[in-house]
Amino acid sequence: MEQIYDLVILGSGPAGLGASIYAKRADLKTLVIEREMVSGGQVLTTYEVDNYAGLPGIGGFDLGMKFREHADKLEVPFAEDTVLKIEPADLAENELVQAAEAGAGLWQVVGESGVYLAKTVILATGARHRKLGVPGEEELSGMGVSYCATCDGAFFKKKTTAVIGGGDVAIEDAIFLARLCEKVYLIHRRDELRGAKSLQNKLMAMENVEIIWDTVVDSINGTDKVSSLSLSNKKTGEKKEISVDGVFIAVGISPNTGAFEGLVEMDAGGYVKAGEDGRTSAAGIFAAGDLRTKNLRQIVTAVADGANCVSSVERYLNEQ
Amino acid sequence: MEQIYDLVILGSGPAGLGASIYAKRADLKTLVIEREMVSGGQVLTTYEVDNYAGLPGIGGFDLGMKFREHADKLEVPFAEDTVLKIEPADLAENELVQAAEAGAGLWQVVGESGVYLAKTVILATGARHRKLGVPGEEELSGMGVSYCATCDGAFFKKKTTAVIGGGDVAIEDAIFLARLCEKVYLIHRRDELRGAKSLQNKLMAMENVEIIWDTVVDSINGTDKVSSLSLSNKKTGEKKEISVDGVFIAVGISPNTGAFEGLVEMDAGGYVKAGEDGRTSAAGIFAAGDLRTKNLRQIVTAVADGANCVSSVERYLNEQ
Repeated sequence: MEQIYDLVILGSGPAGLGASIYAKRADLKTLVIEREMVSGGQVLTTYEVDNYAGLPGIGGFDLGMKFREHADKLEVPFAEDTVLKIEPADLAENELVQAAEAGAGLWQVVGESGVYLAKTVILATGARHRKLGVPGEEELSGMGVSYCATCDGAFFKKKTTAVIGGGDVAIEDAIFLARLCEKVYLIHRRDELRGAKSLQNKLMAMENVEIIWDTVVDSINGTDKVSSLSLSNKKTGEKKEISVDGVFIAVGISPNTGAFEGLVEMDAGGYVKAGEDGRTSAAGIFAAGDLRTKNLRQIVTAVADGANCVSSVERYLNEQ
Repeated sequence: MEQIYDLVILGSGPAGLGASIYAKRADLKTLVIEREMVSGGQVLTTYEVDNYAGLPGIGGFDLGMKFREHADKLEVPFAEDTVLKIEPADLAENELVQAAEAGAGLWQVVGESGVYLAKTVILATGARHRKLGVPGEEELSGMGVSYCATCDGAFFKKKTTAVIGGGDVAIEDAIFLARLCEKVYLIHRRDELRGAKSLQNKLMAMENVEIIWDTVVDSINGTDKVSSLSLSNKKTGEKKEISVDGVFIAVGISPNTGAFEGLVEMDAGGYVKAGEDGRTSAAGIFAAGDLRTKNLRQIVTAVADGANCVSSVERYLNEQ
């Protein structure tokens, strides 16, 4: 039998699970919809997490499991489904909505396997890092291949690393790593950087950074861990191999927000426009975690987003 | 020998320790100053924490210790001192500052036991809940006396609780608890509430809420846990005792920001004005956790603030 949820949470990474914990403790009638068979999101494929306070040096998969176990302990209900779209519940067609006094402002979440009626929705479907798509990238992910210097840089203290990319994030990553590492290569396919000039100046002043221009990565090499990169100069055609202990791929990230186009305002990059309180342009729809416009995409800021969104959901429901 | 820190963090509750973890992993020369002998802040006196994702049902003291151990594992340096004020470093008087090229924008943190020079400072000294100051309040704290319904409400499912206060937070707490508890008293010393009208209407509509007007709490009674409240009606002088399992005191909180007056802009309540990125009105000074202007003061949002502030510190240092 269909029912009306106070809150449907889309996604069960740190943001969605964090939200579910707060929602359940607030006794909201809640459902979490996850398209994968397992919760945790990007955390699952992270080799080691050393910056989630209270759980130093935990494996990413283990941390994802701990978050899910926390939600399970609180008896959060989950559904496995892929959400196709979210739209205002159709009052004319839906008997349940007609029957409910809470009809106004009700949303229907349309999934492949079912339709879910909800007074509020938290979008927490996360983002994914863009891949280079070269041999070795997938195989050595978490074994020297990383998409987050803030997360994993500290594992490469006094070692040699390479950053791939030429935007702000790539430059910030290279500066960050240069303070930790013996040597940092910045490998960029063009002959100039796109990042802010002040950052570029900072980077150029660092003695242990070497920029390799006009160059693409052909493959990431290594057996159990990254040992070298095979490079091609796009202008000269020259090929070479450089030894590295780690490679940080900073060629952009994509939020998983395709299903929400037209529902909420987004920025040019497809991120859902929302501040710290998670409120989006649509009443009753909130955004938590990596898919919203924010400065720092980290596990703890995603979990905090989940808490903030539930607080906003409660305020919103109190206003109705 | 005096030295110049990249970052001095004031306070070692969840915000300060969260910041220290990110700062250390970014290899910033960091010092944490704590005035108490033990880290953890308000968490230490919390009986049980069930909403910090990944560590369900952990004791507050244990969680505080886990945060501190995480920082210790990363070799974060701590100093025990009480900070009196923060001021621009005096270039004329301080030889070290004169010597340093990084003189511009340098701060000196003046403590009872020493002076600390820093390029950036994170204020993370937290807040404290206002007390009623009645017999039993201190003794039964964490044993039925709570200052946070969001944190502790779920422990009182299907039980009887009382909320003390008449502002927005008291009303929100009573609504929150009414969904969980068998019965909720709202005890207010005046004959009308101060909170928003829409919230009041919501509250009045709840059948299991009883408002006790014009009434103050004389004492909180119980041996190992709260069992009743002794009340006095201020208008009639009538005294009575009501049975409760828990009491939520919502008479306001005070940020620990006295030492920062004149340094950064604050709101009327003494909270440091800062958004999610922690930037205050003073360049190089950042605010994390309960002392800043924010919607939701929780452990996880404080830890996230610490991470966000360090990210802002890095951006700020890159801009110099």
